[in-house]
Amino acid sequence: MAAGHVRDVDAGVLDGARGARLVAEIDGRVAGTVEIHPNLPGQGSHVANAGFMVDPAFRGRGVGRALGGAAIERATKDGFHAMQFNAVVATNTQAVKLWHALGFETLTLIPEGFRHPSLGLVDMHLMYKVLT
Amino acid sequence: MAAGHVRDVDAGVLDGARGARLVAEIDGRVAGTVEIHPNLPGQGSHVANAGFMVDPAFRGRGVGRALGGAAIERATKDGFHAMQFNAVVATNTQAVKLWHALGFETLTLIPEGFRHPSLGLVDMHLMYKVLT
Repeated sequence: MAAGHVRDVDAGVLDGARGARLVAEIDGRVAGTVEIHPNLPGQGSHVANAGFMVDPAFRGRGVGRALGGAAIERATKDGFHAMQFNAVVATNTQAVKLWHALGFETLTLIPEGFRHPSLGLVDMHLMYKVLT
Repeated sequence: MAAGHVRDVDAGVLDGARGARLVAEIDGRVAGTVEIHPNLPGQGSHVANAGFMVDPAFRGRGVGRALGGAAIERATKDGFHAMQFNAVVATNTQAVKLWHALGFETLTLIPEGFRHPSLGLVDMHLMYKVLT
């Protein structure tokens, strides 16, 4: 699917802070969502963070990539300086690959930041992308 | 002041999550506070984060150091695996020096993560310390 199939459901003010909610639709059904919000309050609020969900029924159809592209576009338009992800689980290689492909840089690995249900403590990527 | 002058005011459950609030007292007055809580929910909740406040009237008397030491001790006792600070402003060299002295490592700098009122966009340290 293309980023054009992602639409805004809750623009502007979200829970009192700058942010937006977008949904990706396939055949009229919600296939995934992204919520954009400031990563920190106050003097850190010019950096965006975003939370993604994709319905497992729609996996492998480019929903994550479409939502990621739309989130970058939207956060840029809304004047955010950068986007930061705090917790990309290192064993989720598909997500790591996707964010790198969309221009995110891994600034560091948070050692053993995630308790994986079968693998135990695994690292997390701290990712960052300047928006222009 | 010594870490021994820091006392627990709100132990155990804090806002539904694991955490604690400690206060540092000088001459019976509250000189500063620290609040300890999971840095992330769910599968990231084994890493602690902490927020510190020191009353400007008590600056230069070791309150931050005492609270920092007490927070590390308390988070360790409470079974946290590590402590992470997400936003140590790089121009706050006193804080950077204190956390390094207490064993925190700078994993990376978040580029221009903080809007300083006079200096503009400045970096932030992402700090991490394994608790044992």
